[in-house]
Amino acid sequence: MEKTTKILFPYDQTLVKELPLLNSNDVENILNTAQKLFNDQSNWLPAFERIEILEKAASIMSERSEELIHLAISEGGKPYKDSKAEILRAIKGVKLAAEHIAQIKGEQIPMGLTEASLNRIAFTSKEPIGVVVAVSAFNHPLNLAVHQIATAVAAGCPVIFKPSSNTPLSGLALADILKEAGLPEGWLQVVLCDNETAELLVTDSRVHFFSFIGSAKVGWSLKSKLPPGTRCALEHGGAAPVIVESDADFNEMIPDLVKGGFYHAGQVCVSVQKIYVNEEICDRFIEQFSQATNKLIVGNPFDETTDVGSLITPKEVNRIEEWVNEAIENGAKLITGGKRISETCFEPTILLNPSEDSKVSTNEIFGPVVCIYPFTNREEAINKANALDVHFQAAVFTKNIDIALSTAKKLNATAVMINDNTAFRVDWMPFGGRDASGLGMGGISYTINDMTREKLTVFKSKSI
Amino acid sequence: MEKTTKILFPYDQTLVKELPLLNSNDVENILNTAQKLFNDQSNWLPAFERIEILEKAASIMSERSEELIHLAISEGGKPYKDSKAEILRAIKGVKLAAEHIAQIKGEQIPMGLTEASLNRIAFTSKEPIGVVVAVSAFNHPLNLAVHQIATAVAAGCPVIFKPSSNTPLSGLALADILKEAGLPEGWLQVVLCDNETAELLVTDSRVHFFSFIGSAKVGWSLKSKLPPGTRCALEHGGAAPVIVESDADFNEMIPDLVKGGFYHAGQVCVSVQKIYVNEEICDRFIEQFSQATNKLIVGNPFDETTDVGSLITPKEVNRIEEWVNEAIENGAKLITGGKRISETCFEPTILLNPSEDSKVSTNEIFGPVVCIYPFTNREEAINKANALDVHFQAAVFTKNIDIALSTAKKLNATAVMINDNTAFRVDWMPFGGRDASGLGMGGISYTINDMTREKLTVFKSKSI
Amino acid sequence: MEKTTKILFPYDQTLVKELPLLNSNDVENILNTAQKLFNDQSNWLPAFERIEILEKAASIMSERSEELIHLAISEGGKPYKDSKAEILRAIKGVKLAAEHIAQIKGEQIPMGLTEASLNRIAFTSKEPIGVVVAVSAFNHPLNLAVHQIATAVAAGCPVIFKPSSNTPLSGLALADILKEAGLPEGWLQVVLCDNETAELLVTDSRVHFFSFIGSAKVGWSLKSKLPPGTRCALEHGGAAPVIVESDADFNEMIPDLVKGGFYHAGQVCVSVQKIYVNEEICDRFIEQFSQATNKLIVGNPFDETTDVGSLITPKEVNRIEEWVNEAIENGAKLITGGKRISETCFEPTILLNPSEDSKVSTNEIFGPVVCIYPFTNREEAINKANALDVHFQAAVFTKNIDIALSTAKKLNATAVMINDNTAFRVDWMPFGGRDASGLGMGGISYTINDMTREKLTVFKSKSI
Amino acid sequence: MEKTTKILFPYDQTLVKELPLLNSNDVENILNTAQKLFNDQSNWLPAFERIEILEKAASIMSERSEELIHLAISEGGKPYKDSKAEILRAIKGVKLAAEHIAQIKGEQIPMGLTEASLNRIAFTSKEPIGVVVAVSAFNHPLNLAVHQIATAVAAGCPVIFKPSSNTPLSGLALADILKEAGLPEGWLQVVLCDNETAELLVTDSRVHFFSFIGSAKVGWSLKSKLPPGTRCALEHGGAAPVIVESDADFNEMIPDLVKGGFYHAGQVCVSVQKIYVNEEICDRFIEQFSQATNKLIVGNPFDETTDVGSLITPKEVNRIEEWVNEAIENGAKLITGGKRISETCFEPTILLNPSEDSKVSTNEIFGPVVCIYPFTNREEAINKANALDVHFQAAVFTKNIDIALSTAKKLNATAVMINDNTAFRVDWMPFGGRDASGLGMGGISYTINDMTREKLTVFKSKSI
Repeated sequence: MEKTTKILFPYDQTLVKELPLLNSNDVENILNTAQKLFNDQSNWLPAFERIEILEKAASIMSERSEELIHLAISEGGKPYKDSKAEILRAIKGVKLAAEHIAQIKGEQIPMGLTEASLNRIAFTSKEPIGVVVAVSAFNHPLNLAVHQIATAVAAGCPVIFKPSSNTPLSGLALADILKEAGLPEGWLQVVLCDNETAELLVTDSRVHFFSFIGSAKVGWSLKSKLPPGTRCALEHGGAAPVIVESDADFNEMIPDLVKGGFYHAGQVCVSVQKIYVNEEICDRFIEQFSQATNKLIVGNPFDETTDVGSLITPKEVNRIEEWVNEAIENGAKLITGGKRISETCFEPTILLNPSEDSKVSTNEIFGPVVCIYPFTNREEAINKANALDVHFQAAVFTKNIDIALSTAKKLNATAVMINDNTAFRVDWMPFGGRDASGLGMGGISYTINDMTREKLTVFKSKSI
Repeated sequence: MEKTTKILFPYDQTLVKELPLLNSNDVENILNTAQKLFNDQSNWLPAFERIEILEKAASIMSERSEELIHLAISEGGKPYKDSKAEILRAIKGVKLAAEHIAQIKGEQIPMGLTEASLNRIAFTSKEPIGVVVAVSAFNHPLNLAVHQIATAVAAGCPVIFKPSSNTPLSGLALADILKEAGLPEGWLQVVLCDNETAELLVTDSRVHFFSFIGSAKVGWSLKSKLPPGTRCALEHGGAAPVIVESDADFNEMIPDLVKGGFYHAGQVCVSVQKIYVNEEICDRFIEQFSQATNKLIVGNPFDETTDVGSLITPKEVNRIEEWVNEAIENGAKLITGGKRISETCFEPTILLNPSEDSKVSTNEIFGPVVCIYPFTNREEAINKANALDVHFQAAVFTKNIDIALSTAKKLNATAVMINDNTAFRVDWMPFGGRDASGLGMGGISYTINDMTREKLTVFKSKSI
Repeated sequence: MEKTTKILFPYDQTLVKELPLLNSNDVENILNTAQKLFNDQSNWLPAFERIEILEKAASIMSERSEELIHLAISEGGKPYKDSKAEILRAIKGVKLAAEHIAQIKGEQIPMGLTEASLNRIAFTSKEPIGVVVAVSAFNHPLNLAVHQIATAVAAGCPVIFKPSSNTPLSGLALADILKEAGLPEGWLQVVLCDNETAELLVTDSRVHFFSFIGSAKVGWSLKSKLPPGTRCALEHGGAAPVIVESDADFNEMIPDLVKGGFYHAGQVCVSVQKIYVNEEICDRFIEQFSQATNKLIVGNPFDETTDVGSLITPKEVNRIEEWVNEAIENGAKLITGGKRISETCFEPTILLNPSEDSKVSTNEIFGPVVCIYPFTNREEAINKANALDVHFQAAVFTKNIDIALSTAKKLNATAVMINDNTAFRVDWMPFGGRDASGLGMGGISYTINDMTREKLTVFKSKSI
Repeated sequence: MEKTTKILFPYDQTLVKELPLLNSNDVENILNTAQKLFNDQSNWLPAFERIEILEKAASIMSERSEELIHLAISEGGKPYKDSKAEILRAIKGVKLAAEHIAQIKGEQIPMGLTEASLNRIAFTSKEPIGVVVAVSAFNHPLNLAVHQIATAVAAGCPVIFKPSSNTPLSGLALADILKEAGLPEGWLQVVLCDNETAELLVTDSRVHFFSFIGSAKVGWSLKSKLPPGTRCALEHGGAAPVIVESDADFNEMIPDLVKGGFYHAGQVCVSVQKIYVNEEICDRFIEQFSQATNKLIVGNPFDETTDVGSLITPKEVNRIEEWVNEAIENGAKLITGGKRISETCFEPTILLNPSEDSKVSTNEIFGPVVCIYPFTNREEAINKANALDVHFQAAVFTKNIDIALSTAKKLNATAVMINDNTAFRVDWMPFGGRDASGLGMGGISYTINDMTREKLTVFKSKSI
């Protein structure tokens, strides 16, 4: 009998859809299809067709945006206004992918810099890297799919997409749209399967590029199982630290940090997690930050006024509850929140000074919990912010140029925002974790680049 | 009692030097030193100092070039004229590294492409990636050291260098020169140790970047042992295929292919190995190619007239002998050569039509053996050339534009030379294997780039 | 009384439209408006708005494409199929301009390469250059307008556009479309005026960038009248030479050269004008080229089967007739054509070996006349091809790599096509004359770049 | 009888050297030589030779640095320590030119973005632009020569160099050094002649690129005389404005502004000229700035302790005296200085609030005079700073991020320094005036780029 998976609305756990799972034979066929398509260059889609397909897809997505928003909320539970923002970003992402096709190009390599290299002309070109396998995450079901699929289409690679088992519907909708936009059979294959079957995709030597968005633990483990030759990009999370100096502008900062900390119930890989506040202003900070947090509306994601929705599963609510309790037992002061609201929702929570070894200090929380750590010495605060082995995005709030620049230099992060929260992302900027937070660089154009490989052509001729 | 390693002159197996091996405690100290240097940004060497050190080192290398040539021959056995070419390349490589320091820079990331990203200025910078561990190969003992060490110095990374145990002297000489040129203590540490101890370097999470030059088998295996977070570059070999069309210019081609096939006794990762010749001209090709090959002088590498020296170890001579015999037993026709000359030297050998499953067809030979495969259909020849899972450099000889361009497009390789042999390399071009042949891109500037990481700084301000 | 200008359908000289001309007061107001808009940075259009306006405009152009084709034919007389191609190119051009906005960005300038430059961070940004005045030509009335207007909108510059007095309607239609697409008042002002009034635009110091497409004589003369500080781009014509070697592929070449020579009755700045043919194949070339030319259908541009339409004015027919007669009197052999068909149409004409001092040899013909010059020595042919002081696009037909590369190197031209005619252009490639043929580089992205200027910002801080 | 020119030591007007002037016949020969060299591509110097020549020249310059310093002081009168800095910069400049040769390269132009452009490969290359004529200025006699000569050598262009008639010796020394370094005959020709003869160089159509460093008036006038086809770069001066906000760090700022204002007696095109100071701190600023200015040692440039030397000619002292007196008569308050010290030296002078129409407000002073303008409203100060039609480098001193960024955005300048003076320049950064301050961008790599031109090569082939 065919196995299936059930997609539930995270907020109330009602059934949205039940879908069949693929088995190992299906996966074998899928890999064969992708390999055959790629191995014969006469199948390759010319640039102008890839541009047309993606432009068309963006246009269809705009027409169907309300449907896509509904779908994303249903399976992911992100509140309406943020799901809407996600869909708009996803549309822009597809356009960015289409536009970047004109930037897929090589460069001239100068010759004659030594006598031995005279009489040559050399230039590189970029080719599609080959078969792409992309494993995705639940928290931005459409936009992440765009980052892994539209990029592969732009690069000219056949892509096998495995969505999160919680949120496959947005990816499937994108697949439908791309088909309607003219993407021929086989260039995108969506795989719903159990983890054991999925591993067949990861360990197969027909795969040239493996893209993973999800937890660091799973990602690095899968990476170590890749066969020789497979390239890899990993995108995990961090524990986004923020340094708040005494001259920071509260009016701008407070709503910005509330948004960065509690947006999508903190289920964002660059969600504000640790705020190091100069103790001179810490009382005022706590007061204003908690007041603003308390005004957040927690509720049904379909309600347009909702700020914070549910977590992806009840299990996650249990984990957050446990971590918060552990932190309090170990000395953290609860400023606000701290309790579950329902089976699926948790209060926006602020903890003051959790111990350095509590789980909320040493792990990515991925929930609606923000920790405040007062500091007297900025250097020490920076060292604490850098202490974990995950380094992704960070922030500093100050009016002072020297403090801003030196803090940005010292924070170990891929991106440092000055007077903005850590969750800032636009889809054309480089985005990716350092060290254990990830491998390779995300962002539409960066991913397309990773999905190509260079070929150098050298003409040797006495006549030049 | 301290373990040691003996460095032998490959040609006659006489002792050149005996050196102590480091143990696991030494390696621990070395890792600690590197980490401490890197973790405190106040230690970082400013760009102008790195430029001065490398320019000074290049100048010292020029002064000591005869000594370096002697050293490289002594431990590596590459003939005088080619060892001289290597040292000149190594000097140029150090200069290229110095020059590239001015190119280590970020870029502006445009903002305001969406309304949500207004009021921001963003730009990236490049920082040194951290502690580098570099494991090197024997065949270009000085130039490969330059590719792994001068690049790390240019990038501003502390580097731990493990040379081939056969050829550590050139790397040690480079370390002396860099010290004399002003490189402070700890930025370069050379490690001679057994493989077990070396693995401590590979599996240590204090290492940010692992660079390996050597066999694919060892490389991919070490890669799978890297801890989460360590970045990696691998450079292995291929089975460099060449397509020779019926209109090729024999005058230019024959000496070029002889050089590309037998230079350094074929111990070069892009050495010409497989020549697919249009059968219309195959007899003529075999005649001229073998005649030219027979004129090569095999002998003592210190002799300035020697074309082909010894293999790196007697064991390698045994392997080559065995593979050639196997090929002949399986139907290959021996055109010339085929026998060992001494314990350490093997005749330049040409095989016609070895079967597709003989070792000389399925493996990188890394010895003075070239295989000729006649073809009637160019497409089939290209498919055979692409058949292995190693893809590095390839070549095509033809006067015809359409044949040249279409063959270059279809050959699965990082570089395709048109009317030049596969062993062409200049140190500023991208150089690296595809698929199982390697990971990442080599070349001085490319490696320096891999040894840096980007940091994005975003200013948010209502006033802009 | 208000002066007017009459727009005539070139084919039969019937009136299409009569439009009023602006006077010097109008021009003064227009300049004031543009300057005021630009001088207050708070007026500047943010990137996302410029993107939206141009994307919307491209979409409207697609909807109205038949109307735009009709308009372009009415005023310009280019045959239907080529006018259709122009409109499609114009739409793509607007999209390219919209896309390039994301590429308007500065770069990091590295610091610390000398001790004196330590403690600094520096990066450049690109700003709009200021008020643009664009004077345009008649031969691609919509596409040239796009190259001068959409680029200015993309760059963020207010633009004052003066179309050719023969073909203002397409530019005016583009202005309407941009207004509908949301371009605010003042950012595009179209000026119809006599030449005396137009000169007020050229000599005014409020103008930052002057873009001119038209004849070299007028362009360089206007340039010398520019006030200090005004930047300038000129796009003139050439005398596009082609080298045909004895091994060229006739099947591909002949139709390609016929198209390149007679497309839009040769009224294209890179129209094939001079064909140097290896005398070994010259008879065959003449036979096939003239046969194919004779099959061209000359007629009403609105007829979809028409290949060659009218010249822009009857005066031009007179000029061409005169030049052809002069060439024949001076010894040229008439191969085909040579006569006027009507007041406005001239037969596609091939001349063999016109003397080096006839007008058809020394000037850009800009009409349906192609000259063939047989050669015995390719070097000499190249020297003749290079002899004029106008150098724009050139071509060579050969199968041989060495001939192709050496000829491409030796031809003095901005672009050399190998096995394609000189009239090849895509709107994203660099396109512009060398020496007297022009100044600056055209192409959507190149023009946008010229319409920006860099600002370097240097932070000095002890803390970095 | 042969005309001659006398080179005088500016400080005491003693004769340093008398040199013959060239006549129009000489100039004709020089132009012919340059044209012949360039027109035959077989003469072109390959990249590796240009690199070797420039590297050798830099090395000779280092050896002869004391001699070059002496020469520069003798003819230019810049004090020892600043002349020494100039010579070190000049050596680095030659190295930068050598290094940049590896960056002279084209790029791939993608094809197939439209259906009509399929089946093509296109890439650009950079060629030397042709004959360069460079007219130079007196204030950095060696370094400016490097910026105009080493760049032309790097680009592969024959260069005709006309030094300032006051300071030809450094340029002649550079010519000797380049000859010794291996630059073949004809690639550099130095021309000493009167202005009438020099104009023959400017108006000759054999010249491809005209580079001018000097006054705006002369530069723009010469530009209007250029024949069609000649490209042009102009580098003039500005009136470098500085905004000083109330939170500026006096300790860093005061010595920095004194240096920027009085270095080389203000004879620097980006010398600090106009300081707009927030009136809240203006008294303190005037006090500290004048105290520091009064400590400057004015004297013989050969004296190593001298801070400020002589002006280039006695005539310039007269001009400065006249302008200062005019300013005082029109209401400026003299804070310090104001008088000539000798025939050739003028006191470092500070004026407070000169009227907006005095010469010191409306012109580039190019002498040891700095003007202070107090402000109450920063926007108004910026508008005044932007009011002239010359816009080059500017500066702002503040600790505040928002003020720094918004002021940098609003100042109309090619470069804005934040907390550094306007005279900051490194030879690899973009450097050139906006609007009437210049044309094109200076800086070693930018100038080399301007001295090349692109050639696009397009391969069309059904097989790709």
